[in-house]
Amino acid sequence: VTTYPVDIVKVPYKPDATVDDVICFKYYNEDEVIMGKPMKDWLRFSVCYWHTFRGTGADPFGFPTLKRSWDDGSDSIENAERRMRVAFDFMSKLGVKYWTFHDRDIAPEGATLDETNSNLDRLVELASELQDKTGIKLLWNTCNLFAHPRYSNGAATNADAHVVAYAAAQVKKGLEVGKKLGAENFVFWGGREGYHTLLNTNVREELDSLANFFKMAVAYKKKIGFTGPFLIEPKPKEPTKHQYDYDAMTVIAFLKTYNLDKDFKLNIEPNHTTLAGHGHEHDVVMASSYGMLGSVDSNTGSPDLGWDTDQFPMDVKNATFIMKTILDQGGLAPGGLNFDCKVRRESSDVADMLISHIGAMDCFAKALRVAAKIKQDGVLDKMKQERYASFGSGLGAKLKSGNATFEDCHEYIRQKGEPERRSGHQEKFETVLNRYLL
Amino acid sequence: VTTYPVDIVKVPYKPDATVDDVICFKYYNEDEVIMGKPMKDWLRFSVCYWHTFRGTGADPFGFPTLKRSWDDGSDSIENAERRMRVAFDFMSKLGVKYWTFHDRDIAPEGATLDETNSNLDRLVELASELQDKTGIKLLWNTCNLFAHPRYSNGAATNADAHVVAYAAAQVKKGLEVGKKLGAENFVFWGGREGYHTLLNTNVREELDSLANFFKMAVAYKKKIGFTGPFLIEPKPKEPTKHQYDYDAMTVIAFLKTYNLDKDFKLNIEPNHTTLAGHGHEHDVVMASSYGMLGSVDSNTGSPDLGWDTDQFPMDVKNATFIMKTILDQGGLAPGGLNFDCKVRRESSDVADMLISHIGAMDCFAKALRVAAKIKQDGVLDKMKQERYASFGSGLGAKLKSGNATFEDCHEYIRQKGEPERRSGHQEKFETVLNRYLL
Amino acid sequence: VTTYPVDIVKVPYKPDATVDDVICFKYYNEDEVIMGKPMKDWLRFSVCYWHTFRGTGADPFGFPTLKRSWDDGSDSIENAERRMRVAFDFMSKLGVKYWTFHDRDIAPEGATLDETNSNLDRLVELASELQDKTGIKLLWNTCNLFAHPRYSNGAATNADAHVVAYAAAQVKKGLEVGKKLGAENFVFWGGREGYHTLLNTNVREELDSLANFFKMAVAYKKKIGFTGPFLIEPKPKEPTKHQYDYDAMTVIAFLKTYNLDKDFKLNIEPNHTTLAGHGHEHDVVMASSYGMLGSVDSNTGSPDLGWDTDQFPMDVKNATFIMKTILDQGGLAPGGLNFDCKVRRESSDVADMLISHIGAMDCFAKALRVAAKIKQDGVLDKMKQERYASFGSGLGAKLKSGNATFEDCHEYIRQKGEPERRSGHQEKFETVLNRYLL
Amino acid sequence: VTTYPVDIVKVPYKPDATVDDVICFKYYNEDEVIMGKPMKDWLRFSVCYWHTFRGTGADPFGFPTLKRSWDDGSDSIENAERRMRVAFDFMSKLGVKYWTFHDRDIAPEGATLDETNSNLDRLVELASELQDKTGIKLLWNTCNLFAHPRYSNGAATNADAHVVAYAAAQVKKGLEVGKKLGAENFVFWGGREGYHTLLNTNVREELDSLANFFKMAVAYKKKIGFTGPFLIEPKPKEPTKHQYDYDAMTVIAFLKTYNLDKDFKLNIEPNHTTLAGHGHEHDVVMASSYGMLGSVDSNTGSPDLGWDTDQFPMDVKNATFIMKTILDQGGLAPGGLNFDCKVRRESSDVADMLISHIGAMDCFAKALRVAAKIKQDGVLDKMKQERYASFGSGLGAKLKSGNATFEDCHEYIRQKGEPERRSGHQEKFETVLNRYLL
Repeated sequence: VTTYPVDIVKVPYKPDATVDDVICFKYYNEDEVIMGKPMKDWLRFSVCYWHTFRGTGADPFGFPTLKRSWDDGSDSIENAERRMRVAFDFMSKLGVKYWTFHDRDIAPEGATLDETNSNLDRLVELASELQDKTGIKLLWNTCNLFAHPRYSNGAATNADAHVVAYAAAQVKKGLEVGKKLGAENFVFWGGREGYHTLLNTNVREELDSLANFFKMAVAYKKKIGFTGPFLIEPKPKEPTKHQYDYDAMTVIAFLKTYNLDKDFKLNIEPNHTTLAGHGHEHDVVMASSYGMLGSVDSNTGSPDLGWDTDQFPMDVKNATFIMKTILDQGGLAPGGLNFDCKVRRESSDVADMLISHIGAMDCFAKALRVAAKIKQDGVLDKMKQERYASFGSGLGAKLKSGNATFEDCHEYIRQKGEPERRSGHQEKFETVLNRYLL
Repeated sequence: VTTYPVDIVKVPYKPDATVDDVICFKYYNEDEVIMGKPMKDWLRFSVCYWHTFRGTGADPFGFPTLKRSWDDGSDSIENAERRMRVAFDFMSKLGVKYWTFHDRDIAPEGATLDETNSNLDRLVELASELQDKTGIKLLWNTCNLFAHPRYSNGAATNADAHVVAYAAAQVKKGLEVGKKLGAENFVFWGGREGYHTLLNTNVREELDSLANFFKMAVAYKKKIGFTGPFLIEPKPKEPTKHQYDYDAMTVIAFLKTYNLDKDFKLNIEPNHTTLAGHGHEHDVVMASSYGMLGSVDSNTGSPDLGWDTDQFPMDVKNATFIMKTILDQGGLAPGGLNFDCKVRRESSDVADMLISHIGAMDCFAKALRVAAKIKQDGVLDKMKQERYASFGSGLGAKLKSGNATFEDCHEYIRQKGEPERRSGHQEKFETVLNRYLL
Repeated sequence: VTTYPVDIVKVPYKPDATVDDVICFKYYNEDEVIMGKPMKDWLRFSVCYWHTFRGTGADPFGFPTLKRSWDDGSDSIENAERRMRVAFDFMSKLGVKYWTFHDRDIAPEGATLDETNSNLDRLVELASELQDKTGIKLLWNTCNLFAHPRYSNGAATNADAHVVAYAAAQVKKGLEVGKKLGAENFVFWGGREGYHTLLNTNVREELDSLANFFKMAVAYKKKIGFTGPFLIEPKPKEPTKHQYDYDAMTVIAFLKTYNLDKDFKLNIEPNHTTLAGHGHEHDVVMASSYGMLGSVDSNTGSPDLGWDTDQFPMDVKNATFIMKTILDQGGLAPGGLNFDCKVRRESSDVADMLISHIGAMDCFAKALRVAAKIKQDGVLDKMKQERYASFGSGLGAKLKSGNATFEDCHEYIRQKGEPERRSGHQEKFETVLNRYLL
Repeated sequence: VTTYPVDIVKVPYKPDATVDDVICFKYYNEDEVIMGKPMKDWLRFSVCYWHTFRGTGADPFGFPTLKRSWDDGSDSIENAERRMRVAFDFMSKLGVKYWTFHDRDIAPEGATLDETNSNLDRLVELASELQDKTGIKLLWNTCNLFAHPRYSNGAATNADAHVVAYAAAQVKKGLEVGKKLGAENFVFWGGREGYHTLLNTNVREELDSLANFFKMAVAYKKKIGFTGPFLIEPKPKEPTKHQYDYDAMTVIAFLKTYNLDKDFKLNIEPNHTTLAGHGHEHDVVMASSYGMLGSVDSNTGSPDLGWDTDQFPMDVKNATFIMKTILDQGGLAPGGLNFDCKVRRESSDVADMLISHIGAMDCFAKALRVAAKIKQDGVLDKMKQERYASFGSGLGAKLKSGNATFEDCHEYIRQKGEPERRSGHQEKFETVLNRYLL
């Protein structure tokens, strides 16, 4: 088997689909132009290799549940190749334009670094060929610096320099692979960079190590001419009790402390955002506000669960907030919307993996349509701007320019007295938003 | 002032309303028949007196922000009467058919119990008159057993019998008032019944007290001929660290332990459900499954906040789950959908209190329309039923009837071996649901 | 290798141990009599087989990290036997008197139920022999109804009757094994009994199935003459989004609803309690208050993490609350303190598994000493009792007896007026407690 | 009444106190020298005016419960003066050396800014006199920019420039007051600087405003010669859904973004840290690691509650982590340990306010003793340092110096291969720590 077993060439767009016809898009019409760009350019969807092609359904309480006809479960190169052919067929049928992977997703680790890299080269060769054949491009690649037992106490922040060196050697290769495959970005997710207990941890020493590691990466990127942005993906906890890249602002603090903020942007995953105790769209908005939003791992979690469930995004209100932010910053390229999502381990049919991607793409396509309508109407944006109107003139303008003083303010209040009370109108904003959503 | 200052007689139904015309319903059309009943009978909305007419916007960090022209802030009977006239005018204009209140919401506490009850009688008189005049009915009343300092360590579970007696005297009067005003239910919310620290608390003794208290209430209800259901409203925490009525199942355990389960049903508030760590609709579904769902305090919280924010429900997906459960159990009467919601303290315009109710009613009206469509189509229900088909015959039927034994099962497995794997299809269910929602 | 590789016969009691001499007990002195019983009888410690002998350190983000010299990683009977010999040697050296296991921990699953049971019989034979030789007894056994893919949608609550039958056949054998090995209890942990989404779930039908399942178990227990208590172990979430056995009160509600409360008690795990949003000792206290506390899985979690970390209990304040409750109910037998704990995957030395158990046992031993001192002094208990003194006479006594009426209370308040204010003295209770703890 | 009604001159140190003698210190001996400094210099305790002298016990569900004989509840200057005399008497008797306050805690707001400032001047005059008389000093003062309705939508981040100006005028005066009273620091807590909904909020514009505000404060501080550090106190949520000063790292990101990091340090409150989803000591450690720890608001919360409970710190393990960090950075001066704590509203006796402070001071005194023992023994520190030993030479040293490259690392791994596995020994660290604590 080298094809994904579904009897279609490509998932069709059927705006009039019946409720239970789920192998079609009702909202996603890739070439339809929305606000000056085709939908596919606003919605740079990518399929992630790890969940969709390496996920087994195993969890801490149970064995694998997802058996795929094309995967014999072995670590052979042949199996890896067959799997990759199916993956590109799946993505072609689904109609996404991008994919993402960790180094170890696509090729088995060998007995030595050389052997590992040689395995990787073989699969990269095939990937390159399949990319050319299908037109599917690499949104980003990354290195798995957390699964191997050598990384159990962290990679770049390990207390053992030997492990740090191993991670560096691995990222070196990862950058080379990214360059070869034309990766549009390169991602760092902090795997096990964090602590379980402060009793055995020197936080500052570990953060210094992490900064040194990133500086080596920046130097090597320039050396080999890899031009895509570096992205850091914040996560607050899991697997460690405290991940150093807790959330967007924590990463920005780190980058600024070590003068790395020009070299990195952020890859925001909403399920990580909610784990950090924020609202679903918070980190996307914060990163965008700081000019640091590079890409989005579009997934969702269950707000009542305290771990990363990596569910397919199916809530159009949440997706609308994301898309509105992306519209406001003029798009996400060279970043994209990567589905860092996995089918539930109970969703064991091979069709479930297709349906789940379709459902998520349609959710985002609808959200794009809603967000564009909101933006074009301008009603909500105008309501928001009116709240800040006082900064347009007088003392407000002086405050905004940074030229006012406490003495100016004191004098102003002595003359003007109390400000008028103004409503924040939250429920009105929500009601108007619902007019677009319902 | 004795009218709510908005220049309309009644909020109109305008299915073609523009986005920013928020003083109208786009979905709520009270007499339109859905699945055999007018919308107003499925959606027995009520306005709560405490938030909407007694809320001041004070919070633990700040002073009142909501000033109403009809309320002079005093504890006088005249002020209480004026406020009540405005409330009935507001409800009439909004178009709800029910209201709810705590005893202390409508009339000021006096220096003695007698004086307090006499104040209450005066306002009950006026309420009765305004009910007759407007046709608005009392969904339920309840007693405030938590605000007065005497109740700081609980009411029915207080360590001091004197306080328990005070609470009993107060509920006695509350039942009399409910009877007089034709209350369709009577609610108990456990205020400060719970503990802050187990160090100073004898849990079992306090729960015994609570049960005794409820038994006195049941006896008195029968004695005076109050016929509405008694409802308990679960809440997990706040104001106490642990509220004894944690969630639906905790209350059911309590009721069954003390043989009170025939005398009480549950009033579920989703913001309490999410505070208890469950999904928004969980307790509504659990209570309904156990035949114990009596009424719903339809509000919502912010999943990233750990306290009861009592926000107006504005999420149609959440509301659809609630309405589908209500449709499935054939309606909620004599219970209803009480808006235990408050405008944000920042929403300080008088119009905000109207807009917020309209937004919430329209959200539920849309949800009813969606839920009815789902139910009538039957696609989702059929998908669900198919999962349980094996209990219709053979060993499945025997298991379902309660007549199977471990030996039967052992023999069956020896003959049939492994079961087939079946997908749970979560993402397909979600995708089909979105076809109705988007 | 058939022995645990540490160069001691038994962990010694050294009350004067230096700070870094961690292979000894500083507080646990098994035969020392505390309040009339030797410490070992108050502290019926057991080692759990799953974490301590089957844990590999694998987690959702990484491969196994814990390699043990006696375990070749295979599923052979020989490996299983070797592992069991080491386990009994470990427990003997540690000095615990009990162990616990799931059926699948000790013997590999075969191709058929018969083969599986035959594997199990071989290991049960060996266990029986090792129990006799070492004097170590079986606190409880249980069945693993969650790891095999057949149980991915639940066992007793599966939508497929065939799966329910499989689970029943497995528990049938589990009870037979328990009887053979003299298990003092039998535990049910609800594995995957719960839901991920209500969209595809009929809650009531599943709970009915669960009740039927337990009734079959009770019948079979009686039939074969297994005499230990049945215990249910509540857990709120993980692996499912909502576990039906959420917390102590939820389980009690279930048991009472189905008239099963005489046949079951509770096995409380504090890490599950904190996941449910309660304080560490809450469910132990609630279960004990209801006369339903059967046993304790003594572990702990990190309050800032949202999943079950199963850490060794190392906080003496928490342990003191548990031990005080156990002292108050006169002991835990036939239940015990089972260490459902795992060494961190980073704690990869073989010595870590011994040190962690020693640290936890010493923590509980110290807690027992503190709790006994508190109980014998009586200062805290007296402070608590004084709060409830008013129920000893007059109206208080009448309320307590259940003979008071609302009319009595009304009359009492009219005569006595306002109650005096009484402090709850939380900080004083905390300060006095600290006098014992510091 | 102008004295705190307890019949002692000063809380005595009684190392042999009985369990229930709670009006004495068992561990806090202010002049005893620990590691080269008297305890009072390590433990620069301060009493906060807001909770201890302005707290009423009111909460969102109830009226005031705390009546003090010296406080007539009025807003008169006389009442304010009497309250202040009692406060200084209380602090003298308790034996703390510092106090803290918000401007509005000590003097009533008037009808105009001028009147307000004039009220403030009168009380500052008295404070100055009482400081001189008692020797008690001002650890820090701050401005209340959240309680008045004008600040309902924020102060420095308000959408209305008029409100921003008001806040600036208020802080101007606050700095003048701080200078006059010799405040050793000045604190900013972000009150309502944050958002409730992103729908109505321009995050970047508000953060720019906040930075401009702080720059005006820095300029004015220099102008008037106020020399104490400026401190920002992070809090994640409450009263707003998202506070801009979420946690230590978020504040550091903000300060670095706006080049304010040289002008500000952090005042960490553990109850805010745990609300942000971190462990109790996390932000203290992070801030200290970054050289940004200025002061500590030493309180605690309940880990199972989602709001700021401001409880007195009574857990010696938590306090030990704090004190160890403070010892490691050589002390906290000019910062201190401010008790931002309130007695429970149920703790209504006047003695409760004294006992709670004593209990907390003793907890920290014991923690200082334990932490000093740990530091002097060096066992735990050495265990930690050994984990990082590989950075002392060879490639490790090169990595640490920032001079290594990816190519160096690649070469090193090709030669050395896999690193050895090393245990993180978490349970051993915990066990050794317990040897100090138990």
